[in-house]
Amino acid sequence: MADDRRRRLLAANKRFYDAFSNHNAEAMERLWARHHPVACIHPGWPPLADRQAVIQSWRDIFRNGGPLIDIQGARIVFDGDIAMVLCFEMVGGQLLVATNLFVDEDGDWRLIHHQASGVVMDLADPPSAGRSGPLH
Amino acid sequence: MADDRRRRLLAANKRFYDAFSNHNAEAMERLWARHHPVACIHPGWPPLADRQAVIQSWRDIFRNGGPLIDIQGARIVFDGDIAMVLCFEMVGGQLLVATNLFVDEDGDWRLIHHQASGVVMDLADPPSAGRSGPLH
Repeated sequence: MADDRRRRLLAANKRFYDAFSNHNAEAMERLWARHHPVACIHPGWPPLADRQAVIQSWRDIFRNGGPLIDIQGARIVFDGDIAMVLCFEMVGGQLLVATNLFVDEDGDWRLIHHQASGVVMDLADPPSAGRSGPLH
Repeated sequence: MADDRRRRLLAANKRFYDAFSNHNAEAMERLWARHHPVACIHPGWPPLADRQAVIQSWRDIFRNGGPLIDIQGARIVFDGDIAMVLCFEMVGGQLLVATNLFVDEDGDWRLIHHQASGVVMDLADPPSAGRSGPLH
């Protein structure tokens, strides 16, 4: 059963990126929680912490064409009532790292938070854990 | 009681930034969950998803002097067994937005995730929700 939950979690994460890649605003909207507060931080954007603003942001992104996106290395960090998936996103030749938080709602894993931010590294040459970053 | 939980949550968020500002590795270590998986994404870094690597990353950052940091606009998005605080960080003249996830552990709010990423905006002139970002 636990394995099934985790499979469904990774499937929900994949549906998120399928909706993203296909610029499918309706599929994207279905993925976001209805009964829990949500937040979304697009790269370079201030946080959106209102479901309507989050959904509208995706519509605006898709209306502008939206970037091509591919993901690698999706991994579940924890799962309970809330679950976290981390993955790398390849977007328009840039490498981002994303946190996707899901909540178990009505038997589905639905998004409550997405944050993507740039990574200054080559995936083929990951730095050690102790590497200093440019800011923190 | 709910108000007390939220006050303690914002206090834990403040302790995190106090430890950060004071380059206090011991205080920082105490803030991270012991009994739950943790992850941390410093700006520009790949994700760290191991408590020892996360703690070591802060030690390395502090050993290098560490940046000056100030925060604004901390707000709780949700709180339950897991709680999310969003805030802006002013770090070395740059504006970042941070997600801090906490878990209620042994009666304390402890960190299970931190992600900070750059914001391309002026705090005094926030864009509308529908603004297009540089990538997404």
